[in-house]
Amino acid sequence: MADIIQPRVLKGFRDFLPDAEGERRLLAERLERTFSTYGFVPIDTPILEYAEILLGKGGGETDKQVYRFKDHGGRDVAMRFDLTVPFARFMAEHVDELYLPFRRYHIAKVWRGENTQRGRYREFMQCDFDIVGVDSSIADADIVLVINAAMKALEVGEFTVRINHRGIFNRFLANAGAGEKSVEVLRTVDKLDKIGKAAVLESLAVIIGMDTASRVLEFIAMGDYNSATLDRLENLAGGPDGDSIRLREVISLVEAAGAGNHIRIDPSITRGLDYYTGIVFETTLTDASGIGSVCSGGRYDELANLYTTRKLPGVGASVGLDRLVAALELAGVKQKRPHGSGILVLCLDKTSPEVRAECSRMVSVLRSMKIIAEYYPEPKKMGQQFTYAEKKGYRYAIILGNDEMARGVLVLKDLESRESEELAGFDALVQKVSPVNEGL
Amino acid sequence: MADIIQPRVLKGFRDFLPDAEGERRLLAERLERTFSTYGFVPIDTPILEYAEILLGKGGGETDKQVYRFKDHGGRDVAMRFDLTVPFARFMAEHVDELYLPFRRYHIAKVWRGENTQRGRYREFMQCDFDIVGVDSSIADADIVLVINAAMKALEVGEFTVRINHRGIFNRFLANAGAGEKSVEVLRTVDKLDKIGKAAVLESLAVIIGMDTASRVLEFIAMGDYNSATLDRLENLAGGPDGDSIRLREVISLVEAAGAGNHIRIDPSITRGLDYYTGIVFETTLTDASGIGSVCSGGRYDELANLYTTRKLPGVGASVGLDRLVAALELAGVKQKRPHGSGILVLCLDKTSPEVRAECSRMVSVLRSMKIIAEYYPEPKKMGQQFTYAEKKGYRYAIILGNDEMARGVLVLKDLESRESEELAGFDALVQKVSPVNEGL
Repeated sequence: MADIIQPRVLKGFRDFLPDAEGERRLLAERLERTFSTYGFVPIDTPILEYAEILLGKGGGETDKQVYRFKDHGGRDVAMRFDLTVPFARFMAEHVDELYLPFRRYHIAKVWRGENTQRGRYREFMQCDFDIVGVDSSIADADIVLVINAAMKALEVGEFTVRINHRGIFNRFLANAGAGEKSVEVLRTVDKLDKIGKAAVLESLAVIIGMDTASRVLEFIAMGDYNSATLDRLENLAGGPDGDSIRLREVISLVEAAGAGNHIRIDPSITRGLDYYTGIVFETTLTDASGIGSVCSGGRYDELANLYTTRKLPGVGASVGLDRLVAALELAGVKQKRPHGSGILVLCLDKTSPEVRAECSRMVSVLRSMKIIAEYYPEPKKMGQQFTYAEKKGYRYAIILGNDEMARGVLVLKDLESRESEELAGFDALVQKVSPVNEGL
Repeated sequence: MADIIQPRVLKGFRDFLPDAEGERRLLAERLERTFSTYGFVPIDTPILEYAEILLGKGGGETDKQVYRFKDHGGRDVAMRFDLTVPFARFMAEHVDELYLPFRRYHIAKVWRGENTQRGRYREFMQCDFDIVGVDSSIADADIVLVINAAMKALEVGEFTVRINHRGIFNRFLANAGAGEKSVEVLRTVDKLDKIGKAAVLESLAVIIGMDTASRVLEFIAMGDYNSATLDRLENLAGGPDGDSIRLREVISLVEAAGAGNHIRIDPSITRGLDYYTGIVFETTLTDASGIGSVCSGGRYDELANLYTTRKLPGVGASVGLDRLVAALELAGVKQKRPHGSGILVLCLDKTSPEVRAECSRMVSVLRSMKIIAEYYPEPKKMGQQFTYAEKKGYRYAIILGNDEMARGVLVLKDLESRESEELAGFDALVQKVSPVNEGL
């Protein structure tokens, strides 16, 4: 008794109770099904790696947030803070065992010791998918298509995948005489959703002067029609070239696949990371736009140049599963696996061994029919057992006592309608309840 | 180029390539489906916890293996080394938000800095399931039944769940005048499979004398029939009592559920942990008995007494997913998700935008039919594209070039039979290939 340890989790970490974990698993499963149909295969990597692998040689903003320590063998190790760096290491190490282009997905946790006051968590779930080893419009389009399909599978309601090509923007900047400042400009423009137009203009003016800053703002205005927007951007950038043709091809392939109505060219999308070199995209839910993008990504030239001299271009995106859950909550979408016709067999007091055996047999047969079923494990008060059945979302309760057994009947209670009926044995029950157990 | 970081994982850690990860996910998914049908619900807990929570106040063998460090806030934290301790903390913290009896499962990674020379890994996957908040034969039997169903769902071939009750053994020991040594005796008997009969006898003789040691060995002999074994054990222990009646009830409920032929009373099963107080069990695959138990567990009186004064008895078991994979490999069982009629649409050189759009459309329609499909992303040599299709396990390839487009046909190549046929357009194709995409 004496010394009880206070049960609690670390700041920024969370327990997932059954409803929340069930939702997360349902979302992950729907994503997996989509990826699988799109030809993506799963991989996994260790959560601990050499710190040098994860952090490279340089320092950076991320470093301070990384969980890093010495292991039993004195090795400098760290917990992964994203799924991209381990994937780069993975590709460098295993490229000869794989078939290129390699399409992988990876759904797993990552850790960052972030400031929790901003509502951030220190442990969260990422879901990454990439096509590596090819640089083509078909691959670019396929990532956009898998995002589109994933959003539909997740039943998120209305959504928009906003897409852009950094090369077009860079050429426009070069023509405007601001090419050398392109990284800074892209980073500033990336803050548009957060800080607003006026603040972006102000920041840009400091970097490239007010005149060019105004032209940038004109460039990044989003149009209503993809083809018109494309024409306008191409003109502002100085006519067609490889990058604008690429974007045009991507849009055309996406439209041919029937997903054009969810895709919108948005020249303000730049993705802050220097890492991206081609198309970039973000995904917002119409009813939860305040949450920001729930799925972002783009094309990169070099996935793994820290670990190999082999050139590995690719295109990919990432769903933040926790942010997605937050967005769905804001949008009023509750994802729940249908519970079907789950059945609780009640446990009555003073039942004979024969009755108990029959209850065990019934539950077993129901389960073999994929019906969720339980035999309540002790003869508690009926009210308590009904409450349990309702909390677990069961549709029916079965009552089989010594008396029913002697008469060869059982009582089925519908917990929705609250009506009971006497059935002529188990076969009559089986005909009545049909298995509705989607997915899991 | 200069400084390439050598890509490698830490000793005792592993990457999972698609085949291995696909198998692991398939096994996990089958377990989840089984748990779900048996009324178990999922939870999740953080992988990092306060060291005090995970390690309690005492020290022990496990402690040395635990990954433990100071986080950014100077907190003494550790990575979980099993799923039982976090579950105990979870129950103590959330018991009032849950409905008892609580049936949960948890499939997740755990970490131990073990000596890798014994072929052990430092990161591995556990799968735990428990019924907490009740002490009854129905709950005991249900854990045995879910193990039985899980083994069938996993298609492991022949298997045996060996079951025992520690109380019967303890009573026998007490009657033999060795009650005070019961923990030591149980621990020694638990090594029977590893060190053999003679060595156990020798060790026992040191603890309780040769005469009693011989009687213990007689006690733990396994019989061919559960009812006869039960009678014998009951006699040796001094007649029926609560514990032997409990074991009898459990066996009877399991038999009523049709699982009797996989369950065998084995009085030598004791499970070394002091933690267990009632029935205990282990599961061995007939074709991989050398691997030892792939699923073990038992009944305990107090799940969470380190963290709460509330009494939480329960019964549960754990599948070591990595050990299970090893056992399946040894047994020659390869679990692979059927790939169905996956289709690769080949990418031909110099195709018109119309052909590319049509290929994009076809792939999109196939995917909407849940057929795994891809449009190869660049016009590489045909041989290379066929090799890719075969490596990914696709059944068909589709060839649609400018010529085929003009004639309104397409060529379907069966990669198994190596035969090609010309089809009158996409509708003819759809009729030919049927979706076979089990589960995911």
